[in-house]
Amino acid sequence: MRLSKTFIKTLREAPKDEISKNGALLTRAGYIHKVMAGVYDYLPFGMRVIENIKTIVREELNKIGCEEVLLSTLQNPEPWEKTGRFSDQEVDIWFKTELASGGELGLAPTHEEPIITMLKSYISSYKDLPLYLYQFQTKFRNEKRAKSGILRGREFLMKDLYSFHTSEEDLNRFYDEVIVAYDKIFKRLGLGDDTYTTFASGGIFSKYSHEFQTFLPVGEDTVYYNKDKSVVLNKEVFEPDVLEDLGISKEELSETTAAEVGNIFKLKIKYSEPLGLKFIDENNKQNVVYMGCYGIGISRVMGVIAEKFADEKGLVWPEAVAPFKYYLVGIDEKGIKEAEKLYEGHEEEILFDDRDCRPGEKFADAELIGVPYRVVISDKTLMKKSAEVTDRMTGKTKLVPLAELKKSF
Amino acid sequence: MRLSKTFIKTLREAPKDEISKNGALLTRAGYIHKVMAGVYDYLPFGMRVIENIKTIVREELNKIGCEEVLLSTLQNPEPWEKTGRFSDQEVDIWFKTELASGGELGLAPTHEEPIITMLKSYISSYKDLPLYLYQFQTKFRNEKRAKSGILRGREFLMKDLYSFHTSEEDLNRFYDEVIVAYDKIFKRLGLGDDTYTTFASGGIFSKYSHEFQTFLPVGEDTVYYNKDKSVVLNKEVFEPDVLEDLGISKEELSETTAAEVGNIFKLKIKYSEPLGLKFIDENNKQNVVYMGCYGIGISRVMGVIAEKFADEKGLVWPEAVAPFKYYLVGIDEKGIKEAEKLYEGHEEEILFDDRDCRPGEKFADAELIGVPYRVVISDKTLMKKSAEVTDRMTGKTKLVPLAELKKSF
Repeated sequence: MRLSKTFIKTLREAPKDEISKNGALLTRAGYIHKVMAGVYDYLPFGMRVIENIKTIVREELNKIGCEEVLLSTLQNPEPWEKTGRFSDQEVDIWFKTELASGGELGLAPTHEEPIITMLKSYISSYKDLPLYLYQFQTKFRNEKRAKSGILRGREFLMKDLYSFHTSEEDLNRFYDEVIVAYDKIFKRLGLGDDTYTTFASGGIFSKYSHEFQTFLPVGEDTVYYNKDKSVVLNKEVFEPDVLEDLGISKEELSETTAAEVGNIFKLKIKYSEPLGLKFIDENNKQNVVYMGCYGIGISRVMGVIAEKFADEKGLVWPEAVAPFKYYLVGIDEKGIKEAEKLYEGHEEEILFDDRDCRPGEKFADAELIGVPYRVVISDKTLMKKSAEVTDRMTGKTKLVPLAELKKSF
Repeated sequence: MRLSKTFIKTLREAPKDEISKNGALLTRAGYIHKVMAGVYDYLPFGMRVIENIKTIVREELNKIGCEEVLLSTLQNPEPWEKTGRFSDQEVDIWFKTELASGGELGLAPTHEEPIITMLKSYISSYKDLPLYLYQFQTKFRNEKRAKSGILRGREFLMKDLYSFHTSEEDLNRFYDEVIVAYDKIFKRLGLGDDTYTTFASGGIFSKYSHEFQTFLPVGEDTVYYNKDKSVVLNKEVFEPDVLEDLGISKEELSETTAAEVGNIFKLKIKYSEPLGLKFIDENNKQNVVYMGCYGIGISRVMGVIAEKFADEKGLVWPEAVAPFKYYLVGIDEKGIKEAEKLYEGHEEEILFDDRDCRPGEKFADAELIGVPYRVVISDKTLMKKSAEVTDRMTGKTKLVPLAELKKSF
């Protein structure tokens, strides 16, 4: 992409009410635009990061046999009333609205009830199971406070996966497969070193659920971890009986803050029973379908990555999610000409700063936008038939022969 | 995709309240699931059709220099109040909701006000113009009646493009470019032969706007056309002064019904003025930005294509939007073995009916699902080292040598 051709410009200031680091930096660098607290527009750079995150998640889920669907936002109360979740007392983050033709509707904050309703047309026999369906869909949650940029949204993008099984054993098997897939996903996203499978409350249906917590100073959760971080637990289960279960003492654990980037939950028959999602088994007997649900906050992951790696100069993207791999700057007539040549045919990987402005301005924007490698071509580097390549993460600079650089594209 | 591996099954019946042909067929064939009137879930086949339509639209818009963004659904009343459009008297299809922390919000039925608000951070000089930004975003419209399947949704997918200019002349230039791009889009979508640029009301700001109307028996619009269809006009402008303008007499025109698949509009300064979207021109003078807006109903286009080509046996997709190019069936041991070989490495183009059921059932589903080419491999066809290929659109069948078929993948 040519920077001269996009409408995006870096901004000197974020909105005054944008107190989060991720919100302020992503706004200044042209990734997002704040509509109101917890609601953002996504601009071209931001859409690229979101698409990169989605691609990684999609690839890993498809590998374990998941299928993608897209469920509606507008929700009839009926199935939610059957599970007791349409009530504002039970679920306190609903946005509700009214049909012009009469009747209350809700904007889906999650999709257990709608996916069960849909699957009643498709599941009748044990031969139809197991099933694993996921979507990338905007969720709406009426949060009272939303001051954390895209870490906590009133309107945000989530990947939600639902699994359907003939038995609890099969649910357990798939649940463990998802843990492995999630580990791969967070590793690919660049969060592997700081993201831990974390014991959390399982509610009244199972002893534990699992969260995937990324250690982060501005994280909203408090977690406890042992020395080698082989045991991490959420504050909500930091209790004597749990510690005994895990065979660990209070003294071995340290406290820190973390952001929940994923969570997985054995729902069992919590929602499938009241909604009557049943199947006929091998013995011609009717049974209730077992369910699991598995979330990843896609826009939150983008915010966590922004918070995690940013430095005083701006954003720092891991290569796998970066909107571009290279930020290209040509200096002097010859350098610009050579940069043009390098850019040709690589419009997707290179953000080419072809604007008519000072190199210093370009360098500052390169750091703010946070593309992994800044490539500078000038008279000086051309004398060595090279380009100067600076790694945004380490700050290290080296001369790379142009021929070698081209091969890396 | 293996039919045995997807959760999708064709259904004998659509919901009883689904009276539209597109809604009933798309439901029975497993493309969509009805949540309520005008609100649908999209299942894997349906998502593929939507993605194919989006890809064609995106490619043609990118060619004329447009950039993609994604604007939020939740809307602050403020900018809409400035243009007078938050009022239910002015815009009667709002879904509105309440913030838990206080204050009314709307679900965006269109995005002029939000895109102008966002661009106030990015447009200041004539050097920032022209700009062409589009999105694919779910729109919410509180329709009293929604009985036309995905032809008229309460929640539906739209491509909306907005252009920004220093002058009316530049707006006119781009408006004409969009007409050319739209013609290419509808041609590629398979609707070229029946879709016409149609004169429609321009409101009080320009004499005409243009709609793109696909002639269709169940279309909700009435249009008039001359013999060679070089002049097509919406009933709303079927008036003496307009006919005089177009140099055509009432007697030369015939009436028909049509579905509006696109519309384009010169907004000029209608919304940019009240919202204060201004730029500094070459003479250091402040001016209001000129705007155009250009819609294509993505999910509606899917419904129009379904309505247009379906026959008594089911759906018929033009190749460019079809969820798969081939529907593959193997008969007998040898045929199935050869079909497996053919399928390998072509999971994206082939829907492989590898279910354990009668060929007759497979043939019926092939017709209902409407994939362009049915490929049957059996002992009989293998004797001629061939497959039997049936064109869903024409119904014509021919033997095609396997080697030749493989090359066409």
